[in-house]
Amino acid sequence: MTTIDIPEGSLYGLGNLPYGVFATPGTAPRVGVRVGDSVVDLAVALGDDVFARPSLNAFMAQGYDRWVEVRSRIGDLVRGDVPDAAVFAVGEVELHLPFEVADYVDFYASEHHASNLGRLFRPGAEPLMPNWKHLPVGYHGRAGTVVVSGTDIVRPCGQRKAPDEDAPTFGESRRLDIEAELGFVVGTGTPLGSPLSTADFPRHVFGAVLVNDWSARDIQAWEYVPLGPHLGKSFATSISPWVVPLLALEAARVPTPPQEPQVLPYLRESEPWGLDVEFAVSWNGQEVSRPPYREMYWSPAQMLAHMTVNGASARTGDLYASGTISGAAKDQRGAFIELTWGGQEPVTVNGEPRTFLLDGDEVTITATAPGAAGRIGFGEVRGRILPATEAKR
Amino acid sequence: MTTIDIPEGSLYGLGNLPYGVFATPGTAPRVGVRVGDSVVDLAVALGDDVFARPSLNAFMAQGYDRWVEVRSRIGDLVRGDVPDAAVFAVGEVELHLPFEVADYVDFYASEHHASNLGRLFRPGAEPLMPNWKHLPVGYHGRAGTVVVSGTDIVRPCGQRKAPDEDAPTFGESRRLDIEAELGFVVGTGTPLGSPLSTADFPRHVFGAVLVNDWSARDIQAWEYVPLGPHLGKSFATSISPWVVPLLALEAARVPTPPQEPQVLPYLRESEPWGLDVEFAVSWNGQEVSRPPYREMYWSPAQMLAHMTVNGASARTGDLYASGTISGAAKDQRGAFIELTWGGQEPVTVNGEPRTFLLDGDEVTITATAPGAAGRIGFGEVRGRILPATEAKR
Repeated sequence: MTTIDIPEGSLYGLGNLPYGVFATPGTAPRVGVRVGDSVVDLAVALGDDVFARPSLNAFMAQGYDRWVEVRSRIGDLVRGDVPDAAVFAVGEVELHLPFEVADYVDFYASEHHASNLGRLFRPGAEPLMPNWKHLPVGYHGRAGTVVVSGTDIVRPCGQRKAPDEDAPTFGESRRLDIEAELGFVVGTGTPLGSPLSTADFPRHVFGAVLVNDWSARDIQAWEYVPLGPHLGKSFATSISPWVVPLLALEAARVPTPPQEPQVLPYLRESEPWGLDVEFAVSWNGQEVSRPPYREMYWSPAQMLAHMTVNGASARTGDLYASGTISGAAKDQRGAFIELTWGGQEPVTVNGEPRTFLLDGDEVTITATAPGAAGRIGFGEVRGRILPATEAKR
Repeated sequence: MTTIDIPEGSLYGLGNLPYGVFATPGTAPRVGVRVGDSVVDLAVALGDDVFARPSLNAFMAQGYDRWVEVRSRIGDLVRGDVPDAAVFAVGEVELHLPFEVADYVDFYASEHHASNLGRLFRPGAEPLMPNWKHLPVGYHGRAGTVVVSGTDIVRPCGQRKAPDEDAPTFGESRRLDIEAELGFVVGTGTPLGSPLSTADFPRHVFGAVLVNDWSARDIQAWEYVPLGPHLGKSFATSISPWVVPLLALEAARVPTPPQEPQVLPYLRESEPWGLDVEFAVSWNGQEVSRPPYREMYWSPAQMLAHMTVNGASARTGDLYASGTISGAAKDQRGAFIELTWGGQEPVTVNGEPRTFLLDGDEVTITATAPGAAGRIGFGEVRGRILPATEAKR
């Protein structure tokens, strides 16, 4: 038996207990929980086969009461001794995509981001669309290209047309960008015709992950009217390997900023679900931005209520993300198109002026939040840009 | 043993052989093929467990050579005698969703439809966006709400704002509509970073289904800027239960209309993949439109090449649909918003002037195409409108 050491100030203490899917060389991926710098194999430690699977989906589908029970049992377990065979150092395991993604929806919930993008994509027009303060604008993304942190990102090719060009050309994206976001994972869904209310949020959403919604701005700008972004986004979306349980985020709850005009009844909340999560974005190891999630206009409970208000079902494994997190200050912007104002105002990265991503660049997004006993960590979502391939073109 | 009778002029002769998932009372759903007015249980008839599953996915994932082989074996089988236990009358089986939908993309490939919608949604502006003739515009829809023909459609609620109203109101959609489309099912996908060419289309796409992309125009018109349609579409998309193999559509192949300006090289085709599929739309039993698929500007091979050109992977079960099929003539329009010109020009249905869908209305979309030996049928996609529910609001 082993006693798990939790280092002083660890972001992965008993107040966090994020779930992931891990494997060691020669073994099958299975569910683990991170404690300090260790990963505990839950199938072994709790003797339950629901954790002996390569995704969290079966466990998530067991529902809220079960999530509470397992969290409590893990706490008891870790306070005592854990079987040796259940404990691995986090550095010796490989982390996999933690859940099978059902549908993926990306929102647009930061007023600063939506205003900045409006100014950049539609110069001279009102930056916020008339609907923006009435509903959380969102759209479906490609679930099949959600990848786990550490997956290399191949620079996408596609059609691009600059405003001063007569016709589009085909080639690699010259304006490859990131979007730092927080994603929410549906644990138990709802059938067709049974909308979820804002109050249903904590019983249906299992947890949260960090999201980097890689974006090819030149492809996006040319394609996105009138049906929205498609190939400018669908090549890859990276998520962090650890799913922080919503149960770990009680101490992070804050009100959203004031919503004026007042929202329609189905979007009102009786309890606040804004979240005080502090993000940091690093570009080749240098921190360039600190987006504040607490400034997001729409809460994740409002997003869930909106997404199902038309009767759409939700499923275990549905992922919905906040959209880029940007604060009011320049160094709080969660996308490089905003941070460099469309490439016109380079930022200095390791001594070099930089705008969009170059081949070989690596971006790492991390986040922390207040927990029940000290801050808790979301881990990281990281990706490196590989050159475009010329296959089949 | 039984000899399967194929009635003279049947749309389901040996040149068709569409696959579906069926069950009889008290038995589990499994894969069958339609022959005349019979359904043949393929697990029993061919003695292969890949067909003893509740979806076509495992069979589709076996790939093109296997699709050819099984089609040939079914032909041989049906020309001889089939075990009694493998044969059911089509009227005695229940048909299920034929495959698990991975990602769902909806295109916008009819020039007539895109022009009509442009005039209706953006009066006074150029109807076609500048990108429209350069790329097949498309967006992701909600995979989790794809339902099989016959599923009732509950009228969705949501935010609507008429141009003359100051603020949106919440309530049931007053402009509920259909979109008659043809959908394509990916049999074998491609990994991240390996785009499919137009020539790859017949080896990767397994077959085609009829699609009714139910659309709440009032919800859509208010929400869709700038990120595209979301709740105006995500409440339900109906598909036909029979997947017509692409192998059955050789005789239906036609060139697309001339594409001018010339498209970029990755969208060019060495062989035509336009399809001469004739649709019919019935509203409460009365035919109101005959959309001609052969007039679609973009081919499904071009859609597939476009969808993956940025390196996006494709998966077994991906569904992509053409967008509304509309011809040049008024009675060839595949959506009621076009057929009634935004509700200003009612059509007469069973003696009554009608615009958008009322509760209790039923819409049935059918289609046929030339086959190797006589016309082949796609079956139908049918749905009835139920009143909005007031649950949880």
